[in-house]
Amino acid sequence: MADEAPFQLLHSELIHYIYQSEHGADTDNARNITKLEAMGFRVGQGLMERLTKDTARFKDELDVMKFICKDFWTCVFKKQIDNLRTNHQGIYVLQDNKFRLLGSLSAGKQYLEHAPKFLAFSCGLVRGALCSLGVRSIVTAEAAVMPACKFQVMIQKS
Amino acid sequence: MADEAPFQLLHSELIHYIYQSEHGADTDNARNITKLEAMGFRVGQGLMERLTKDTARFKDELDVMKFICKDFWTCVFKKQIDNLRTNHQGIYVLQDNKFRLLGSLSAGKQYLEHAPKFLAFSCGLVRGALCSLGVRSIVTAEAAVMPACKFQVMIQKS
Repeated sequence: MADEAPFQLLHSELIHYIYQSEHGADTDNARNITKLEAMGFRVGQGLMERLTKDTARFKDELDVMKFICKDFWTCVFKKQIDNLRTNHQGIYVLQDNKFRLLGSLSAGKQYLEHAPKFLAFSCGLVRGALCSLGVRSIVTAEAAVMPACKFQVMIQKS
Repeated sequence: MADEAPFQLLHSELIHYIYQSEHGADTDNARNITKLEAMGFRVGQGLMERLTKDTARFKDELDVMKFICKDFWTCVFKKQIDNLRTNHQGIYVLQDNKFRLLGSLSAGKQYLEHAPKFLAFSCGLVRGALCSLGVRSIVTAEAAVMPACKFQVMIQKS
């Protein structure tokens, strides 16, 4: 019932702390977003290492993305990604129709401007998860109709 | 298998962030401990509110403590408290033989001095949980033999 609550609440506290600390006034939004993203990155990396410790090797990039949508997402958010799309050229769109970390914001457009700070950590989470498997990426998110949320992953070919 | 990992990893990031930020040098240990405790307090409060939304009223203080040892602890740490003792005069000792948030520190005495910063959040967690039920308390923790850990709760009579 409340399985995802500890993580959710801790995530809210983290945002609150970063945004209220002396050096993190709202004017410094970009810097705060970067901090949150970096923390998400390390959590995603560590988590993916644990989750894949005993799994077979992934066939390809799509196989990795499916693992993130199912196992990884379930571990963190207690639900799967609702929809995964790709252009088969390195761009993936992951849609979560009820994204847990936006739950504390009311639905509708009123608080839309605050969405980025609630999404930065999770963008990092996905980027870190991919990185732990050697896949470099750029991850962005948008929440046009809260609490639904889309993550766009652009794989960086080396 | 890794159900508690997202929370654990996020907790580690939080400690790391607080201790490395410009104003949180190690010299400021007491202040950092207070910050972590306060964050734990709010998470504990919020979580307890969700967990007790539909439960029957508690009989007494001991009943509340049992709920914390079982339902609350399981929600956060995916295990119960291993041992609960009380002097029946407002002091409770909760022992967790394998406390998850100490898992990243090696067993033994080598890192014992670092234990307080890994326990502060959880002390706040318990204090916040009790507070949401109207019970004021002082909560301290000690980890003499890691990863075992004892939380001492002193109920404050008003």
